[in-house]
Amino acid sequence: METNEYIERKRNEHLTDLYEFLRIPSISAQAEHKQDVERAAQWVADRLRRVGLDAVEIVQTKMHPLVYGQSLKAPGKPTVLFYGHYDVQPPEPLELWTSPAFEPTVRDGNLYGRGTADDKGQVHIHIRALDALRQTEGTLPINLKVIIEGEEEVGSENLWDYVNHNKSKLKADALVVSDTAMLAPGVPSITYGLRGLNYHQVDIIGPAQDLHSGVFGGAVPNPLTILTELFATLHDKNFRVTVPGFYDDVAVVSRAERKALNALPFKEKEFRKTVGAPALCGEKGYTVVEQLWCRPTLELNGIWGGYIGEGAKTVIPSKSHAKFSTRLVPYQDPVKIARLVERHIRKLIPKQVTCNFQLLSSGKPWVAPYTHPFFEVAHRALETGFGERAVFIREGGSIPFVTQMHDTFKVPCLLLGFGLPDENAHAPDEHILLENYFGGIKAMANFYQGLGKL
Amino acid sequence: METNEYIERKRNEHLTDLYEFLRIPSISAQAEHKQDVERAAQWVADRLRRVGLDAVEIVQTKMHPLVYGQSLKAPGKPTVLFYGHYDVQPPEPLELWTSPAFEPTVRDGNLYGRGTADDKGQVHIHIRALDALRQTEGTLPINLKVIIEGEEEVGSENLWDYVNHNKSKLKADALVVSDTAMLAPGVPSITYGLRGLNYHQVDIIGPAQDLHSGVFGGAVPNPLTILTELFATLHDKNFRVTVPGFYDDVAVVSRAERKALNALPFKEKEFRKTVGAPALCGEKGYTVVEQLWCRPTLELNGIWGGYIGEGAKTVIPSKSHAKFSTRLVPYQDPVKIARLVERHIRKLIPKQVTCNFQLLSSGKPWVAPYTHPFFEVAHRALETGFGERAVFIREGGSIPFVTQMHDTFKVPCLLLGFGLPDENAHAPDEHILLENYFGGIKAMANFYQGLGKL
Repeated sequence: METNEYIERKRNEHLTDLYEFLRIPSISAQAEHKQDVERAAQWVADRLRRVGLDAVEIVQTKMHPLVYGQSLKAPGKPTVLFYGHYDVQPPEPLELWTSPAFEPTVRDGNLYGRGTADDKGQVHIHIRALDALRQTEGTLPINLKVIIEGEEEVGSENLWDYVNHNKSKLKADALVVSDTAMLAPGVPSITYGLRGLNYHQVDIIGPAQDLHSGVFGGAVPNPLTILTELFATLHDKNFRVTVPGFYDDVAVVSRAERKALNALPFKEKEFRKTVGAPALCGEKGYTVVEQLWCRPTLELNGIWGGYIGEGAKTVIPSKSHAKFSTRLVPYQDPVKIARLVERHIRKLIPKQVTCNFQLLSSGKPWVAPYTHPFFEVAHRALETGFGERAVFIREGGSIPFVTQMHDTFKVPCLLLGFGLPDENAHAPDEHILLENYFGGIKAMANFYQGLGKL
Repeated sequence: METNEYIERKRNEHLTDLYEFLRIPSISAQAEHKQDVERAAQWVADRLRRVGLDAVEIVQTKMHPLVYGQSLKAPGKPTVLFYGHYDVQPPEPLELWTSPAFEPTVRDGNLYGRGTADDKGQVHIHIRALDALRQTEGTLPINLKVIIEGEEEVGSENLWDYVNHNKSKLKADALVVSDTAMLAPGVPSITYGLRGLNYHQVDIIGPAQDLHSGVFGGAVPNPLTILTELFATLHDKNFRVTVPGFYDDVAVVSRAERKALNALPFKEKEFRKTVGAPALCGEKGYTVVEQLWCRPTLELNGIWGGYIGEGAKTVIPSKSHAKFSTRLVPYQDPVKIARLVERHIRKLIPKQVTCNFQLLSSGKPWVAPYTHPFFEVAHRALETGFGERAVFIREGGSIPFVTQMHDTFKVPCLLLGFGLPDENAHAPDEHILLENYFGGIKAMANFYQGLGKL
């Protein structure tokens, strides 16, 4: 049977197998799910064996195991390193799920459940593509190395150790990752750029202890007010970041690239609907697509301090706190930007308080040309899988691993993602469009076939 | 035996009895302590009977009972209404207490425990003063009505119902309250002014749900940033509130009163030490005492939104929240000020978000002349109790009940408090200075004796 036909006929079988994977609550952040995480690793190892990979092993790390497998039976053919993760975000708040997080459920053409899009569903696309190739062609047309890790949602710390100790083993002609989103339903997409990320926390400390706002209010510094005054100055009227030097190294996007990005079928109306706010708000002089993909930002991610319970408590707290992040674009250097941001904020802290400053995580931006012949193969494979022409996009999020791999192995990175921007990857009611899941299997099988013919 | 000598000799007995009262965890805010609250009411009723009051009753309300008692056996003599409360604040966070909250413990001349200062210790001062008068003089030299309520820490809602239904029963020549603080150790104080209070909550709503700050950041409104920009504009460089009309009705404090207040033995150095911040911060042109007692404020009491847990989560939240309050002085009208504040904030809310606005509580400011002869009696009694000249002070906090009683009964209100500003009334390690407790008993006995001689 022809591969595409086989994939089409086995729709039920794909889903039955995926449900088994999704039902394992492999929540890497929660210690009580440690055994579930291990069970998921075993499940993945078993599937890699079934689709014909060799040397499949569960590699124990300081936290959660990663799964490795390979098939090197196509001499002279390209070698691909595929990366994915089997761990998932915590499902809380549970009461906001329409159907249980770990009970996969189909509604309106979407499959709902934690991990459907991020990233179990996308890992499973590859497993099913490999299965289809094995069933219809007998062997894999290329050489393949696979890493599926279990710590992506908690920082991938041990993954990087593993990579550094196994550089020659992992050597490949290209890296393939399926952990991103398509531009829109029916628009298969290849992502060639990601923003970098610095994530900070600042704590402002005023009085030595919480004070009664009646007895002390009017004569003492209020760390909450000082926090608002600090962050209010970090954007100007045009929504540009006011940190001196912040834009110094920002790459000017070429006229040609701007034109290409703005010609994409990006539906601003749909975007507005997804956001659901009364109006949008972004840096003046740039389109929404440019604001999201090509321009750096500074965003508050969390603020807290004082009384946040029911009703009233008249307190001036000792401390206030903010978590915030900068998204970075080429050629901003995260280390330099972190230093500029910290220096600027410390300068703004008034003498009535002190502050603590932490950098919680940091990752470089990444943009790469899509000129390598593998991109052409991917482009055709996506068109076959979805019946629609694929587009080249960038994305606003960050995948530090991609940048690190690119820097280490200097090979093309193909980000072939089958999620959608509104799929609630880290929120309740996470889902994947079933047509994207099935289209993905077909696309990936065709991609591996296409590489084999190069 | 002379009354003062009796009080001095019975120090151990006062404390043993007080410990019994303090050991009852009468936490009005916590449902699981409902029986403890009732036990405390019974304890108070029993003590009022023992010191010779008649018609002692435990009045059930919709929430917690209040205790009433009276002694009307001094015809032609003044009638005093004494108010206090037997309920206490929750003790949490428990781990910050040096000794357990409900196990009274003496350290360095202070008695530690929840309720020592606010307000069980101060209620007990009156109980022991009445006991001393009964033991040494046989009868009370004046007429007395007593209300000790059990809902002060949760808003006193039912108290006001009770007062409204019992106006003629409660009629008196003066109200006496012991729920305030002395200016400093060794400085007995009569409080003649309180600030009013409006307590608000504002919720800012942007995106329809939490968004990924990578995927969406740069093109959408961030309710956290908007909250900081909003509150940063509410004070000017001189720390004045920028709400138009906010200061319109603020009473100009007379030159004589300013002089008197600034001549008080207020130790700014001690105040700085208590606050413990690197520097103070207040409205330009006013001394600390004036800032605290005579000037209105706007203070944030709590802010929250987005991710506030450990580590990093890259979210742009749908909502942000702030609790804030204005402290008001004569002749600011809380209703008018609440309207001005809400109107101003609504005007500042940008079009990208919506907002909810709530007024959670409201109370008028109060300042009254201390010209009535009862003040002279109180002044002398405090001097006898403490061996130091008493002072007239205002205070920055709010006791809505005092204003309401003053408006209803139009009689002098004598705020004779024996706490101290740093006594941690609503915090861990609440305490009362033992010398204030003993001095208070003597002062109150002398006060009642003095009124009897008018």
